[in-house]
Amino acid sequence: MDKLNMSRHISGKFNEELEAVRNQVLNMGGLVEQQLRDSLYAIEKSDHELAEKILQRDFNINAMEVQIDEACVQIIAKRQPAASDLRLVIAIFKTISDLERIGDEAERIARVALESFNNDQQQFLVSLENLGQQVLSMLHNVLDAFARMDLDSAYEVHQMDAQADRQYEALTRQLMTYMMEDPRGIPKVMNVLWSARSLERIGDRCQNIAEYIIFFVKGKDVRHVSAESMERTVKGPGVGKK
Amino acid sequence: MDKLNMSRHISGKFNEELEAVRNQVLNMGGLVEQQLRDSLYAIEKSDHELAEKILQRDFNINAMEVQIDEACVQIIAKRQPAASDLRLVIAIFKTISDLERIGDEAERIARVALESFNNDQQQFLVSLENLGQQVLSMLHNVLDAFARMDLDSAYEVHQMDAQADRQYEALTRQLMTYMMEDPRGIPKVMNVLWSARSLERIGDRCQNIAEYIIFFVKGKDVRHVSAESMERTVKGPGVGKK
Repeated sequence: MDKLNMSRHISGKFNEELEAVRNQVLNMGGLVEQQLRDSLYAIEKSDHELAEKILQRDFNINAMEVQIDEACVQIIAKRQPAASDLRLVIAIFKTISDLERIGDEAERIARVALESFNNDQQQFLVSLENLGQQVLSMLHNVLDAFARMDLDSAYEVHQMDAQADRQYEALTRQLMTYMMEDPRGIPKVMNVLWSARSLERIGDRCQNIAEYIIFFVKGKDVRHVSAESMERTVKGPGVGKK
Repeated sequence: MDKLNMSRHISGKFNEELEAVRNQVLNMGGLVEQQLRDSLYAIEKSDHELAEKILQRDFNINAMEVQIDEACVQIIAKRQPAASDLRLVIAIFKTISDLERIGDEAERIARVALESFNNDQQQFLVSLENLGQQVLSMLHNVLDAFARMDLDSAYEVHQMDAQADRQYEALTRQLMTYMMEDPRGIPKVMNVLWSARSLERIGDRCQNIAEYIIFFVKGKDVRHVSAESMERTVKGPGVGKK
């Protein structure tokens, strides 16, 4: 099944342009994923050199966002896309904005990785690592879903966010207890808390991207709708009704 | 000067559509501004009833975002806008996404307003109030700049964010000291900290909207550029160079 309807364009050039911009998004996604993976590694291993690299690379992500954005505007102006082509361009517009901000969150985490944590504090870095892995696989899967415009995978990522939220809340409680027990450690623990918050936000942004994929495939805006309505949109009208 | 070039459309209907969607954005902006103002008032006065109202109203903002988004897609599909019309539609697309998220942050602040703070804790609510007023006037001014597509006002808002960031950092330091002095108060202080973070993020989003206005008026993407390059774009080629 040709989900992207690439075959139906009379203009081969238009196909090429859409394909090119789609590939740019995938490249940008790959870089953002690497940034997140590296930032988690840098925190876990206190790898300051890697953290510095992450800070430098954020520049490339920003540049990619601006480039893709411009390419989308060009496509709208020149090709006057309609129906699913237009939805694709709009889904790309929104996706890259979330990707760029995921990059910013990875950068924030990398800044925390520049701190030196002592052995006592290692325990909460482990909890951060768990949340980090959950969010990293959400990002990986949603980029994969985007590459194939796969409705079911997008929906799965959307569902994964509840687990990330639970992990985040448990971690927050743990960190607050830690601060109460050892007030001198508060500034450092606060930084870990900000990182946890960054990860939670990345989960939300992956959920956003999943919604854009559903919008593209189904032509229906599923932001702010109930869980039942979302399920009906993805799985068909018979599902999710009582 | 007709900055929005409304006069040059042959189709009066197209004019009307653009005007209508622009008005919708202004309405949405007005509601978001009210949400933020109310959430600050609710925290300051511990007004739980008002806080509850804010939570309920967030639904309307989400609905407006979806509606305007759809109207923009329709305009692109039917009218195939080019040049400054297309830039306007794109600026609207992005602006409403930031507005919706400002609404979410106001909602988060309203949740904190549901807490009961004691007299001891009133002192840091006052500091939060200062940051809140700064950010509220950024939002007010950027919506005003959007209504008139006024380059200079947009640039002013952009510059105001540095002040908000400084206030945020001072507040964060103050709250951390407070936590170290009285660890039992940590959970409550943390909530104030999250609110401060929300305000700081709202400032960033106002800055984003200012960038979209500059993009619309100047046709140049000024995200991620240096302060000098931004100044040159806004004030002309002779400015900001050494």
